Amino acid sequence: MAPPTAIDIEGVTDTQAIVLPDPLTINGVSARRTKAGKLVAGTAAFTSSDQFKSETSGKPNAKRWDHYLTVESKSRQPSSLKTAAQYLRNPGIISLGGGLPCAENFPIEELTVKVPSPPHFSEQETKVSGVTLTAGKYDVAEGRSAYDLSIALNYGLGTGSAQMIRFVTEHTEIVCNPPYADWHCALTVGSTSALDQTFRIFCERGDYVLSEEFTFASAVETALPLGIRFAGVKMDDQGLIAESMDEMLSNWNVQERGARKPRVLYTVPSGQNPTGATQSTERRKAIYKVAQKHDIYILEDEPYYFLQMQPYTGPNAAPAPPPENNEAFLKALIPTYLSMDIEGRVMRMDSFSKVIAPGTRVGWITASAQIVERFVRHNECSNQNPSGISQLVLYKMLDESWGHSGYLQWLIALRLEYTRRRDAILAACEEFLPKEIVSWNPPAAGMFLWLKINHHLHPSYATTPILDLEEKIFLAAVEKGVLISRGSWFTAERNDFVPQEMFFRATFAAATEEKMAEAIERFGRAVRESFGLVGGENGKVGNGNGHGA
Amino acid sequence: MAPPTAIDIEGVTDTQAIVLPDPLTINGVSARRTKAGKLVAGTAAFTSSDQFKSETSGKPNAKRWDHYLTVESKSRQPSSLKTAAQYLRNPGIISLGGGLPCAENFPIEELTVKVPSPPHFSEQETKVSGVTLTAGKYDVAEGRSAYDLSIALNYGLGTGSAQMIRFVTEHTEIVCNPPYADWHCALTVGSTSALDQTFRIFCERGDYVLSEEFTFASAVETALPLGIRFAGVKMDDQGLIAESMDEMLSNWNVQERGARKPRVLYTVPSGQNPTGATQSTERRKAIYKVAQKHDIYILEDEPYYFLQMQPYTGPNAAPAPPPENNEAFLKALIPTYLSMDIEGRVMRMDSFSKVIAPGTRVGWITASAQIVERFVRHNECSNQNPSGISQLVLYKMLDESWGHSGYLQWLIALRLEYTRRRDAILAACEEFLPKEIVSWNPPAAGMFLWLKINHHLHPSYATTPILDLEEKIFLAAVEKGVLISRGSWFTAERNDFVPQEMFFRATFAAATEEKMAEAIERFGRAVRESFGLVGGENGKVGNGNGHGA
Repeated sequence: MAPPTAIDIEGVTDTQAIVLPDPLTINGVSARRTKAGKLVAGTAAFTSSDQFKSETSGKPNAKRWDHYLTVESKSRQPSSLKTAAQYLRNPGIISLGGGLPCAENFPIEELTVKVPSPPHFSEQETKVSGVTLTAGKYDVAEGRSAYDLSIALNYGLGTGSAQMIRFVTEHTEIVCNPPYADWHCALTVGSTSALDQTFRIFCERGDYVLSEEFTFASAVETALPLGIRFAGVKMDDQGLIAESMDEMLSNWNVQERGARKPRVLYTVPSGQNPTGATQSTERRKAIYKVAQKHDIYILEDEPYYFLQMQPYTGPNAAPAPPPENNEAFLKALIPTYLSMDIEGRVMRMDSFSKVIAPGTRVGWITASAQIVERFVRHNECSNQNPSGISQLVLYKMLDESWGHSGYLQWLIALRLEYTRRRDAILAACEEFLPKEIVSWNPPAAGMFLWLKINHHLHPSYATTPILDLEEKIFLAAVEKGVLISRGSWFTAERNDFVPQEMFFRATFAAATEEKMAEAIERFGRAVRESFGLVGGENGKVGNGNGHGA
Repeated sequence: MAPPTAIDIEGVTDTQAIVLPDPLTINGVSARRTKAGKLVAGTAAFTSSDQFKSETSGKPNAKRWDHYLTVESKSRQPSSLKTAAQYLRNPGIISLGGGLPCAENFPIEELTVKVPSPPHFSEQETKVSGVTLTAGKYDVAEGRSAYDLSIALNYGLGTGSAQMIRFVTEHTEIVCNPPYADWHCALTVGSTSALDQTFRIFCERGDYVLSEEFTFASAVETALPLGIRFAGVKMDDQGLIAESMDEMLSNWNVQERGARKPRVLYTVPSGQNPTGATQSTERRKAIYKVAQKHDIYILEDEPYYFLQMQPYTGPNAAPAPPPENNEAFLKALIPTYLSMDIEGRVMRMDSFSKVIAPGTRVGWITASAQIVERFVRHNECSNQNPSGISQLVLYKMLDESWGHSGYLQWLIALRLEYTRRRDAILAACEEFLPKEIVSWNPPAAGMFLWLKINHHLHPSYATTPILDLEEKIFLAAVEKGVLISRGSWFTAERNDFVPQEMFFRATFAAATEEKMAEAIERFGRAVRESFGLVGGENGKVGNGNGHGA
C-alpha cells in the first residue's frame, strides 16, 4: 500500500488536520480478506460493518443525533432474548433458548442460479457462457462456502447476514469512502421500507420534511399517513437549489406553517424521480453546507446512482467512448453525499432494485453507528431482515462469483444499456414532439425523462385550470394509446397546491426501443391535437419542427 | 359436488339461516382450477382472493371497523400512479408510466431448487428421490409455467403475487373455511412485520392491547415503542381464560389504567409462546363470545398451528398412530378462530417460518376485505411485498410440485417430527429434573416447554426477590452449560410488574435429541445445586425422584 496521503476536509481546521489512508480498491479488498481469514458466521450470527471496514483511526466520529430522535425511536430497547445470545459464546453451551427451527426440517436441499459471467452479460451471451452457482444446505460445515442454505433459511439478525454486510460494506467503502469513522451498513427490504422506518426515527406527526418541489410520489405517500408533510424546494436543471433551501429554512415561519423548522432533507441526487435531474458535485457541496448551517439531516436516496449514463452527445453525434476500466468508471461517477459527509449527517439508501432486480427486495442503508443501531432495532420488530433466499442468491452471484470487480463491470454494462435507452427516447422526442410546446433536458442519470409542456399556448389556457388541462392531455394520450405520468402526481406539497408549470414524466426503462418510439409518436399526436396544431382526430402527424401554434 | 348442507352458525338467527356449500377439499381445488382456466398474471398483476375463492353467496359480509381505525391507517390513500394502472388494460397501450426495469436487465436467467418428493421428506430420502424444480426467465411467455423469473424479479403489488395469493387462499379455505363472505388474504414479510403494521391500523399511542399474561416477547417489544402497552389476561393450562378477559374488560378502569378500554386481543391460540398452552375448541368459542360482547378485534397469531402434535402418551407408552390421511389430519386440528369468525372480527396471521423456513420471510394474513385493504395500502408504502425469489421458490415447491395434498403430507411429517422432539425433551425432564421443584404440562403444539419452578422451596426464598432468584438460577444454568429463557422475559405487563410465579422456557425445536437430554440434565443439576439438594458444585446428579428439598 502507498503511504497515507494528507487530505483537506472542509470544516475541519488545520490544527485537527486528518491523515486518511488511501481509498479502498478492489485489490485492497482481496488483500484485506486474505489478512482477515475465513469469514465464520453461522445461523443468526452477530455482524457489523466494523468487521469489514478499513482502519478508520484518524477519522472523526459522527455527530450524535439524540436531539432529533422521535419518541418512538428513542424508546426502542434491545430484546431480552437477543441480549441473552451473548452466552452462546460460552464453549460447549447448549441452547434451549431461542425458538430457531432445525435446518434438517427445511425442505430445500439445494438452490442453483444461472447468471452471466463478466463481462458477457447479455441474455444471449449468458446462454453460452453463463455460470451455474449452487448452494447446498451444509456448504459451510462441509467447507465449500462461507454461506449456505442452513444459515440463509433460518432466522437472521436485524442487520442482515454477515456475508452480505461484508459485501455492501466493502462496496460502499470502494464507492463512497465515508470520511468519518463510525459509519455502518444495515440491509433493508428496499428503500421504500427504509424510508418509512427513517421517517419514524426522525419525524413526529406534524413535522415537515424538505424535498425537491417535484419528488418521488411514494415518498410523499409514505410520509402523509404519519402526519409528515413535504416542503418542496425550488429546482433547476441540476435539481434542488441550495440557495432556495437556505432561504426556506432561514425564513421558516412556524406560525404560518403550523410546524417547527424541518430537520430532514429527503433528496434523490442522481437521476431524480420524476425530473431526471442530477446534482453536480458543486451543487451537492452547496446543499451539504446549507444542511450544516441549519442542522439538517440528509436522506440520500440513490436507487439510480449507478444509472449515471454516458454524456449525451446529441441526435446524430458519435457516442462517448465507454469507461476504459473499473477505475475510470468509478472516477466518472459524481461523488455521493456520503463521500463528503464529515459529520455523519447523511443516511445513504442504496438498493439492488434498479441495478439487479426489484424482486430481490434487498437494499441497504449507510449511516452513523447511532442511527443504524436505531434502524436495526426497528428491523427486529418489523421485517427483521431481507429474505435469506434473496441474500443467498445475491451472495453467490455478487460475492462468490463476480466479486467487486465483476459487479462493477455489470454496472458499466448497465450504464451503457441505459445510455442506449435514453438516447433512443431522446431521438424519438426530437423526431415526434412539437418543440414549441414540449421541451426537455437530456437526463444524465436514472430512468426518467421530464417533459415540460408550454401550456400557455393551449387554446383553453385562459379558461381551464392547469390541472384540468393536464388531465385533458393525459387522457388524450391514453386515447392515442400511451400511458405517461402526470407531473402533478409528483408535487411535494399536496392538498390545495397548484403547480405553475406543466410536466409529464416518461420512463425509458421499461419498453423496447421500438415501442418507446411508437409511444412518443403517439404522445406527440395527442399533444398536437390537444393544442390544435392539426385538424382530424386520426390525422397522422409528421415531424413537429416548423409547425406554429 | 355434493349438495350444500345447512349449517347452524352461532349468533345468526333462524330467520337468516344460512346455507353454505361443502367446505373446499383438495379435489375441489383441482376441479375449480380446471374450471377457472389457466392463471394469467404477469408483472405486477392485480390480484385478490376473490379470484380464487369458492362462491360465497349466502354468507354474510364482515362487520365494518371504521370506528377502530387509527388516524394513520385512515389517512392511507391509494397511490396516483397505481390508480393509473387501470389504463394498462386498454388494448395496445404502451406504458411510459411506471419505472419498472426491463426483465432483460435482470442477471438471473434460471433458478433451480432441489426439494423432497412427498411423502419422502427426510434429507436422506431427498438425496435419493428429491425433485429438481427449475424456473426460467420467460417460462410464462413460453407456456411452461404460470410464474417465472421475469415476473418474480420485477416489482409486485402490495398483496403479493397472484400465484402465491391463489395458493394461500385455497389453503386457508381448506383449513379454515371462513364463515363470512368478504375474507381476503395478503402476503406478509412475516408475522412480526404483520403485527407491527396491524398495531398501526388499530392502536393509537396510549392504548392497551389484551394478551396472555405471558406472551411472545417480540410482540410486546413491537408495541411498546408505539406507545402501546399489553394488559395480560390470566392463563391456565389451556391458555387465556375467557372469564378473566371478560372480567378485565367489564371492570376496565379508564382512570386507573390511564387508557381507554382495549379494542384488540393479541393471542397465540396453539402452542403459545412461551407457555406451550393450546386453547381447546370450547375455550376458543368462549373467548370469541367475550370478544363479541366487548367488541374486541382478535389478532390470531398462529405460527405453530401446524405444529400441533400427536397426543402425549407418557414416557413408556406406545405412540398414538399417525393420521391416516390428509382428511384425518385436517380433522385432528383444533378449529381456528377464523373458522368460527361469523363477523370478520379476526385477523389470522399465518407464516411459513415455522413450517417451511424462517429465511423465506413469507407469511400471510386473512381478514375482512376492509382490513386487508388497509394492510395492503401500508405494504405499498413500506416493504411492498415479500421477496419475489422467495415467492417463486415457494410457488414451484408448494403449488407446482407438491400441490395442496403434498403440502399437507409435509405438515403431517412435521407433526410427527415435533412429536418425537417433544417426547424426547419430556423423557429427559422425567429423568433429570427434580419433580418437587420443577413441574410442567406436556405441550400439545408448538416448540416450547414451560417449566414451573416451585421457588418457595429455595433456601433464599424469604430473603431474595423473585426476579433476583430467577436470575440466579438462570446464571447457574449458564454456568452448567445450558441456555434457557427466563419466564419474566415474557411477561405481558412490563415496567414494575413482578410475576408471582417462576418459570423457564425451553425449546425442543433446535437442538438434537441427544443435546436436549444433555441440556436438561445440566439444568437439573443447576436447579438442584441452587436449591441446595446436593453438595459439590460438580457433583454428578442422578435421577431426581426421591430427592427431598
